[in-house]
Amino acid sequence: MGDGKGSGGMAAQAGKLGVVASVAINLAALALYLRRRYSDDGVGGGRKREEGDEMAVAPSSGKPPVSPDSVINLDHGDPTMYELFWRGDAGERATIVIPGWQTMSYFSDVGNICWFLEPRFEREVRRLHRLVGNAAAEGYHMLVGTGSTQLFQAAIYALSPPGAAAGAPMSVVSPVPYYSSYPAVTDFLKSDMYRWAGDANTFDGETYIELVCSPNNPDGGIREAVLKSGTGVAVHDLAYYWPQYTPITKAAAHDIMLFTVSKCTGHAGTRIGWALVKDRALAQRMNKFIELNTIGVSKDSQLRAAKILKAISDGYEHAPAAGDRNRLFHFARRHMMARWGALRAAVAASGLFSLPDELPGYCTFAKETVAAYPPFAWLRCHKEGVDDLDGYLRERKIISRGGAKFGADGRFVRISMLDTDEAFAIFVDRLAAMK
Amino acid sequence: MGDGKGSGGMAAQAGKLGVVASVAINLAALALYLRRRYSDDGVGGGRKREEGDEMAVAPSSGKPPVSPDSVINLDHGDPTMYELFWRGDAGERATIVIPGWQTMSYFSDVGNICWFLEPRFEREVRRLHRLVGNAAAEGYHMLVGTGSTQLFQAAIYALSPPGAAAGAPMSVVSPVPYYSSYPAVTDFLKSDMYRWAGDANTFDGETYIELVCSPNNPDGGIREAVLKSGTGVAVHDLAYYWPQYTPITKAAAHDIMLFTVSKCTGHAGTRIGWALVKDRALAQRMNKFIELNTIGVSKDSQLRAAKILKAISDGYEHAPAAGDRNRLFHFARRHMMARWGALRAAVAASGLFSLPDELPGYCTFAKETVAAYPPFAWLRCHKEGVDDLDGYLRERKIISRGGAKFGADGRFVRISMLDTDEAFAIFVDRLAAMK
Repeated sequence: MGDGKGSGGMAAQAGKLGVVASVAINLAALALYLRRRYSDDGVGGGRKREEGDEMAVAPSSGKPPVSPDSVINLDHGDPTMYELFWRGDAGERATIVIPGWQTMSYFSDVGNICWFLEPRFEREVRRLHRLVGNAAAEGYHMLVGTGSTQLFQAAIYALSPPGAAAGAPMSVVSPVPYYSSYPAVTDFLKSDMYRWAGDANTFDGETYIELVCSPNNPDGGIREAVLKSGTGVAVHDLAYYWPQYTPITKAAAHDIMLFTVSKCTGHAGTRIGWALVKDRALAQRMNKFIELNTIGVSKDSQLRAAKILKAISDGYEHAPAAGDRNRLFHFARRHMMARWGALRAAVAASGLFSLPDELPGYCTFAKETVAAYPPFAWLRCHKEGVDDLDGYLRERKIISRGGAKFGADGRFVRISMLDTDEAFAIFVDRLAAMK
Repeated sequence: MGDGKGSGGMAAQAGKLGVVASVAINLAALALYLRRRYSDDGVGGGRKREEGDEMAVAPSSGKPPVSPDSVINLDHGDPTMYELFWRGDAGERATIVIPGWQTMSYFSDVGNICWFLEPRFEREVRRLHRLVGNAAAEGYHMLVGTGSTQLFQAAIYALSPPGAAAGAPMSVVSPVPYYSSYPAVTDFLKSDMYRWAGDANTFDGETYIELVCSPNNPDGGIREAVLKSGTGVAVHDLAYYWPQYTPITKAAAHDIMLFTVSKCTGHAGTRIGWALVKDRALAQRMNKFIELNTIGVSKDSQLRAAKILKAISDGYEHAPAAGDRNRLFHFARRHMMARWGALRAAVAASGLFSLPDELPGYCTFAKETVAAYPPFAWLRCHKEGVDDLDGYLRERKIISRGGAKFGADGRFVRISMLDTDEAFAIFVDRLAAMK
């Protein structure tokens, strides 16, 4: 493959150039924005300007900036990649103003099963699903949650029979490699009602809840339920079933579907997810979980999420000719494509690693055949003697999440593909240099 | 006591007049406000004006308005009483603007135990405690939660030993009458780690978590921990320890103290509470609960809560001569005083009921002796044959919360004192007429 960094053919060169150019554009845009915002009074940075100033100007993230020598933490799927999109025109349109007197009540709509669901948020979610075509939302009950994490807990609570005999909690399973949070969140309260029971591939009971994440976290694979028993139920986590990550091949229509704003738009800090549930009694029981856990979900977050989703749909329906700066999914897909290109080039340059194959398919939203660009890279190491890739990378100042947390081999790690351009560029450089 | 409605002495008359006047002012102010807001384009009410309009104009609550014949629901402590304050000048200053690019990251401050706590929110909480003098916050770790409900769950999780032997969950107790949610929230997931064990007054174990709510929900009583074992821990729920409800007699300095925005400012829909915790390891463990439950707490809600708390503190520190429209606690106390006056007059007029005695005390914040005006009325019925006061009131179209839910007698009910002026006025009228 040549002498290392920068070699590996024209595709690799182009990919690398794309990343470098992207980083430069990002930094320049940020510099211009900051200069414009702070030039009025000569005060740099957040605090002084905030007093009495209704425009909130604090930075978007509480993480320190990176440098070529720093530890690069790609353990979490913190979606700061999206910030560049939202600092543009779309971000202006997504700005929300909340007067002091608004959303004070616990209640949003007492006539609804989900009495804390803001009607405006529901409307924009259903609109977005119609636009993208990734879920058949008509006829489904909708619930809102403080992230899809809370809705996943609501689902396993709702699906576990009340008054279950002691010693026979409902088994919760998922096929390896599964999302590392599934076991942790299922078991942290040691509930008698449900308990993590591991790999669905090797589960042989009749009654279970199977968590099906598709595209899958960590490996990006497209999945169906593995288990087929009539008394088992599948919960479909569709956090990544958006066009920037994977071709939209059909409108999903499973009985229980979970989505999250975090991975659709990048607004992880808003803490909003939603569930589409076919069965009314199940929806009521999931709703009860959220009532007891947090007496509903923040109205402010819902209104903000509604504004953000509206800006996305408006960008496609009202300003389609304005280029990618108004088209979130196209912007993000372009970014993911450049990053995957750079990553595959670095892996080729290094020679120590492998990645899952690309999965192309026809996307009904983009109306063309596209490759999949998963939000996480499921990186495998082939170097002799390296059984703990997480530790190996940590010695080289890259923080990843080790395969064992996903029920898999220590030679795998999960790497976030959603962090800042700066962090990703440094990671790719270091990876390419590993021999 | 005379012939019923309207009789009972000058105090009762004055109280009743106060309520009527208050309702009239409230309705007039609302009418003026709505006319001013909608006069520009002649469009009445929410939806049409929202499209493209960044000012969110939907009403504050998803509950339908009341009329003299409607069912009056005072079961929930929905704090819509505060809306009148926030529709004034203070509400303008509490308006928040959140740009599309802000608060996208999961992280607020990675150097902090509570990495999802927004620094601006922490600053305003500590400032408010210094202003009011109700808690000695210096030296305490601060955690934020999706309401104090989530923090209560974090506390019992954190205080229950990991790997506890099966069959020996930590006992969670509270003295009767206790907040109806304590048993429900403790037990809904049937955790092996902790379990509701009822009335603290009759508990005789050595190891426990005692929930001490002061002022108490439902009866307004000022409480200390009942149990004194060295291996037991008290969690202090200070949701109502604010000057509008009770005299501030000292700066609370317990090991674990919970507060909620809902009952301090009226912004229940924002879903924000906070905890002050002395012990670092305990704070870390509580933090872990919130990580697993909802991957932190909405940034948007925290920024909004910070703005609201700032408006309250500014109202006292920067505009003290401007009267009650800038002084939340004085506004709310005046409202509570009028309502309690009207309620005591109605109880006197009816002759069937009794209320807890008034508890006056010197308030270090108001710098005068004041009575306590609890946010709930713990109403007891003395009528022969009425053992289920909740049912008796329900037949008369008043929804309350029955005493049994608080571990008490069915002759008690809890009535919210925080609902709208309209709902409260209708309730008081109906109560006075019951013979």
